Amino acid sequence: MPKVVDHDERRAGFVLASWSVIAEEGLNAATLRRVAAAAGATTGALTHYFTDREALLVETLRSAHFEAGARMLRAASSAGAARDKLRAVILEALPLDDARLREWRVWLAFWGEAVGNPQLRKENEIRIAEWRDLIETLVAPLVGQPRAVEAAVSELLSLVDGIGLRLALAAPAEREDLRADAHSIVDRATARVA
Amino acid sequence: MPKVVDHDERRAGFVLASWSVIAEEGLNAATLRRVAAAAGATTGALTHYFTDREALLVETLRSAHFEAGARMLRAASSAGAARDKLRAVILEALPLDDARLREWRVWLAFWGEAVGNPQLRKENEIRIAEWRDLIETLVAPLVGQPRAVEAAVSELLSLVDGIGLRLALAAPAEREDLRADAHSIVDRATARVA
Repeated sequence: MPKVVDHDERRAGFVLASWSVIAEEGLNAATLRRVAAAAGATTGALTHYFTDREALLVETLRSAHFEAGARMLRAASSAGAARDKLRAVILEALPLDDARLREWRVWLAFWGEAVGNPQLRKENEIRIAEWRDLIETLVAPLVGQPRAVEAAVSELLSLVDGIGLRLALAAPAEREDLRADAHSIVDRATARVA
Repeated sequence: MPKVVDHDERRAGFVLASWSVIAEEGLNAATLRRVAAAAGATTGALTHYFTDREALLVETLRSAHFEAGARMLRAASSAGAARDKLRAVILEALPLDDARLREWRVWLAFWGEAVGNPQLRKENEIRIAEWRDLIETLVAPLVGQPRAVEAAVSELLSLVDGIGLRLALAAPAEREDLRADAHSIVDRATARVA
């Protein structure tokens, strides 16, 4: 009997391998050959699913965003009042544990590459717009005026990106202090939304 | 008579060429060969000054930080009261014009590469510490308690990184709105420092 291959699972395995290679060694290391090896497959098997490196990278970025988005929705649904939901989602977005720190390092690698790569930049703009919409949906019930919603959203998004970036680049010795700072910055910022 | 070469000028020319290549095409494009060509020189002439690509990249990062630092000090010295100095330096740090947007894209490329490169990460930590010290020096006169200084500094640094990152990644159509947002976020944040 021929071996049955679950194509979705196989594809997901390559995306996961790509993710791990980027998180450990940076985006440059994530060649088709290297990712195939990390997935225990041949380059030929990988190119059956992804025609080139860029296609693999775009799907890696997309799947990581979806996973982070799903986590945030779970965080929101387990929190109570509107302000608690907002706070829970923002904390979930930040690299406050080592798994999410790895995630942020991968975003960083992608953003760095997006500087010279229009396709990644475009993909990124779509993801950023989705993230903005999520925060706007959470902020709107707390704020009266539409212009005040915009201002609060813009400030919160800036804080999340800034805190995440600083944590992703911090020396290990400073990480715990920064994580404590992050909690109080988020507490103050969400308390100001009104 | 032999041609007189100003070695400092030659070296600075290579750094400038490296900077331009990174800003236009990303860090991957900045090979020794490509940078030498952009500077109108041979690869051999470039390797006389920089033994390898990493040495060139570290010096490019360092020189860009020094230039940005000098600009900020000028901005501070031309502002009046302590709060105005703080505000002027923060605005100077942000990509509110196209030259500084280019600069931010280069930071982004470096940060992305630093994920998998300990030498760039180390270099970056030194620069981040200098930037933190500058903001702390400007915040301290406005705030009584040392712990309140730390909290204000951490929030301001996060906002600068977040606003800069968002602007560097934004689609051109959204850039002007984001720049207006940036001004009001900075106004509110510096007004809160007390």
